[in-house]
Amino acid sequence: MAEADLRIHAVDQGPLEHWETQLPLAVVFAESVEDVQKLVRLAGEHGVAVVTRAAGTSVSGGANAVTGSVVLNLTRMNRILQVRPEDEVAVVEPGVINAELNAAVAEHGLMYAPDPASYRTSTIGGNVATNAGGLRCAKYGVTRDSVLALDVVLADGTLIRTGSATFKGVAGYDLTSLFVGSEGTLGIIVGITVRLRYLSPKVETIAAFFDDLPTAAQGVLEIGRARVQPAIMELLDRGTMQALDGAHGSDLAQRGAALLLLQTDGYGAQIEAEMIREVLVKLGGRVSAPGDEESNRLVNLRRHARGDGIVNEARVGEDVAVPRSQLVKYVEALEGLAAEHRVDLKVVAHAGDGNLHPTFSVSSDDGVIPAEAMERLQAALDGSVRVALDMGGTITGEHGIGTYKLRWLGWEQNDDVIALQRQIKQAFDPNNLLNPNRAIL
Amino acid sequence: MAEADLRIHAVDQGPLEHWETQLPLAVVFAESVEDVQKLVRLAGEHGVAVVTRAAGTSVSGGANAVTGSVVLNLTRMNRILQVRPEDEVAVVEPGVINAELNAAVAEHGLMYAPDPASYRTSTIGGNVATNAGGLRCAKYGVTRDSVLALDVVLADGTLIRTGSATFKGVAGYDLTSLFVGSEGTLGIIVGITVRLRYLSPKVETIAAFFDDLPTAAQGVLEIGRARVQPAIMELLDRGTMQALDGAHGSDLAQRGAALLLLQTDGYGAQIEAEMIREVLVKLGGRVSAPGDEESNRLVNLRRHARGDGIVNEARVGEDVAVPRSQLVKYVEALEGLAAEHRVDLKVVAHAGDGNLHPTFSVSSDDGVIPAEAMERLQAALDGSVRVALDMGGTITGEHGIGTYKLRWLGWEQNDDVIALQRQIKQAFDPNNLLNPNRAIL
Ligand SMILES: Cc1cc2nc3c(=O)[nH]c(=O)nc-3n(C[C@H](O)[C@H](O)[C@H](O)COP(=O)(O)OP(=O)(O)OC[C@H]3O[C@@H](n4cnc5c(N)ncnc54)[C@H](O)[C@@H]3O)c2cc1C
Ligand SMILES: Cc1cc2nc3c(=O)[nH]c(=O)nc-3n(C[C@H](O)[C@H](O)[C@H](O)COP(=O)(O)OP(=O)(O)OC[C@H]3O[C@@H](n4cnc5c(N)ncnc54)[C@H](O)[C@@H]3O)c2cc1C
Repeated sequence: MAEADLRIHAVDQGPLEHWETQLPLAVVFAESVEDVQKLVRLAGEHGVAVVTRAAGTSVSGGANAVTGSVVLNLTRMNRILQVRPEDEVAVVEPGVINAELNAAVAEHGLMYAPDPASYRTSTIGGNVATNAGGLRCAKYGVTRDSVLALDVVLADGTLIRTGSATFKGVAGYDLTSLFVGSEGTLGIIVGITVRLRYLSPKVETIAAFFDDLPTAAQGVLEIGRARVQPAIMELLDRGTMQALDGAHGSDLAQRGAALLLLQTDGYGAQIEAEMIREVLVKLGGRVSAPGDEESNRLVNLRRHARGDGIVNEARVGEDVAVPRSQLVKYVEALEGLAAEHRVDLKVVAHAGDGNLHPTFSVSSDDGVIPAEAMERLQAALDGSVRVALDMGGTITGEHGIGTYKLRWLGWEQNDDVIALQRQIKQAFDPNNLLNPNRAIL
Repeated sequence: MAEADLRIHAVDQGPLEHWETQLPLAVVFAESVEDVQKLVRLAGEHGVAVVTRAAGTSVSGGANAVTGSVVLNLTRMNRILQVRPEDEVAVVEPGVINAELNAAVAEHGLMYAPDPASYRTSTIGGNVATNAGGLRCAKYGVTRDSVLALDVVLADGTLIRTGSATFKGVAGYDLTSLFVGSEGTLGIIVGITVRLRYLSPKVETIAAFFDDLPTAAQGVLEIGRARVQPAIMELLDRGTMQALDGAHGSDLAQRGAALLLLQTDGYGAQIEAEMIREVLVKLGGRVSAPGDEESNRLVNLRRHARGDGIVNEARVGEDVAVPRSQLVKYVEALEGLAAEHRVDLKVVAHAGDGNLHPTFSVSSDDGVIPAEAMERLQAALDGSVRVALDMGGTITGEHGIGTYKLRWLGWEQNDDVIALQRQIKQAFDPNNLLNPNRAIL
């Protein structure tokens, strides 16, 4: 295989350790469960690590290769095996693109709820391996809440099935949840049975511009206090709006310093939207009128809000989550950190879940970033993570630890918790050949 | 401790192995996390098994003692430690009764969604250890979907914390889900952080009587086809109605052979109820009018429908779940099995989840059941489990394996899956002292 091909398969969209690409030995494209089993067995015999890769949209370095590894590409295992509208389940191969599954089930009035902003490119297998979140998760829960059963190839090539195609089941331990979010370190997911939800008969969209970010965050709390549950509740700051304006020719940034984007759905959508509008107007928001066309366009723009800038040494995005009551204080803290360390800040958040993606960056006119600026960037990043933890939050709401966030994992988890996870890893993959050195310490 | 006290603590409400009570050595009432840690350490030093017990409402024998064990009673650890309305979370000790938590959060417009029919007696700790389901789970998911973080005492006395008090979090493996439903075999749950949901501003109740059970089951499918999601969707057969009539003086059984009980909630409750009524009338159901008072009483009766008869050798209840499309065929099969083996059948089901509780029984005039009748009973039970598995179902939707369902676990799970779970148990509890010989094979 040409080095260029290896290079493409060596990295995902997340940060690299020391920003150095490690090339794999080879890339294998599996087309069947048997292909996966064969590769894993062969790799086991030769003590070669297997790095599983789907669409490579991870932003945590979870799919980054390691030197001497084989990359197992699953994108060709992309068949929707069953859509069972009466059971409200579907069975898919891991390489099926999220948007394609949703398109296939929509004709039955169904949806696969978890919709990461990468839904048009990322795979169900990747979503499961990272327990991906998304916009609709505010109401419908994350990937784990939609996964009923898994087919998994273990480190020794054994194929097992966990869970069952029923909505409920408590036979034995919850192995399904253990594989969900395990980032390919415990087994390779080769089949997924998902629960589908009802497509909403109607959706109401609300866009509300605010003069500052903390007030917009306060809106999230006020809506909660009104005990209204939107399907989508996203928060964008001015930096994010500027990026969208640049990419799409919109004029968002001049309309406010922060934007709350909401959708209500179900048969109560209209009443709920009305309640939300009232709450946000009272807070000083400039709120879109019912039926406003532009708001829907904004939601679609938001779905791509993370795609505007690839991460690199000088621009890194985070993924913390905090208890909801801390949202206002947390965005204030972020703004404080950006000022203190003189770095640029951009924030987009799945605000309904208390899950924020601040992106910090530094720049220079000639493109060469001085070491001193890099240090400020790192200090801001570390600070943003520390503050989230101090507020009772987590270092990663949905992107996973991958390789990049390993440096903070010990801040969140103590030695006993780390040891317990190591024991699980040891039991499942005694030779440490599946996605080594990521997800856990 | 008097033998009578030991005897009370030796059994839960489920079947006993060979119907023989095994008395524990002692019962310890913990009042703090430290009490639990001390007991577990002491037990470890002496190689004594610890059987954790909460309210003892398990119907699977999960809390049954084993000879030579110490029973650890957690019912005195019953403080609600925090209600955080802004965060929409609560933190409780394990012995808090489900209904008490719900009462405490209701004043904030919140609810703890999972509501097993035992909600007035069972504990949050027990609910978590069994991943309990309930009536509202049709819409709001099971216990696992409401648990954010756990404090757990491990087999060596170490206290760990899993998860975080955020709605989302993917740092490391999902240990929280692994402990949920592990029936006390991996650790003792001493603190629980739950997510709360919004209490619905209104609820619409619908009662629909049918001439036969399969048609009522068909109603569940038709409602699904209309893509309406009720909060509650329960199915009761005539036998269940007769039992309720006997206990409460109602006249349900003479009104039909089956009853579907539904509730819709949220701001769309009324529209949804109207749609459901239409669907069920078309199917020949005798459907209650909007606002009908009696329907609400019926839901409350249903909440206690399982309490009418304690299990014993001659009367055993099951807990299978099947894919939704199989509901009609499955209730037909149950009726066939009852006829074939000449046993009595009673069915109550969390039908929205495809989770059924058939109870088979045999009787005799003098109370002495002939061995031949016991064999027929066992054949009917085995048959009902086998049919559920053949339809792609599971042997337990919510009650857990406990000790009673171990005999069927190997029918559902193959040796590789069993081995993997044993390795987890071995890693967490190497001396097999926590709730030995239950939940897994
Ligand atoms: C523009 C953009 C927007 C995004 N928005 C979101 C968002 O809203 N929410 C969110 O959660 N994430 C988001 N992400 C991150 C990313 O898309 C998700 O993590 C996604 O789930 C990764 O899927 P993938 O198919 O690209 O997997 P990859 O990136 O190829 O792999 C991700 C991880 O899973 C492992 N893996 C993949 N497939 C398997 C398998 N079958 N078996 C075992 N292990 C496997 C890999 O080894 C790796 O560790 C976004 C990324 C981008 C670029
Ligand atoms: C009338 C009636 C109705 C019921 N309805 C339902 C229903 O609708 N849905 C449903 O799911 N179940 C139902 N059940 C079964 C039972 O109530 C549930 O399984 C409940 O979750 C058990 O809670 P408990 O506090 O009684 O626990 P126990 O019965 O004391 O214990 C249950 C299991 O959990 C373990 N355990 C308990 N607490 C802990 C802890 N803190 N840490 C570790 N392990 C622990 C025990 O060792 C045991 O294995 C019903 C039972 C009855 C009698």
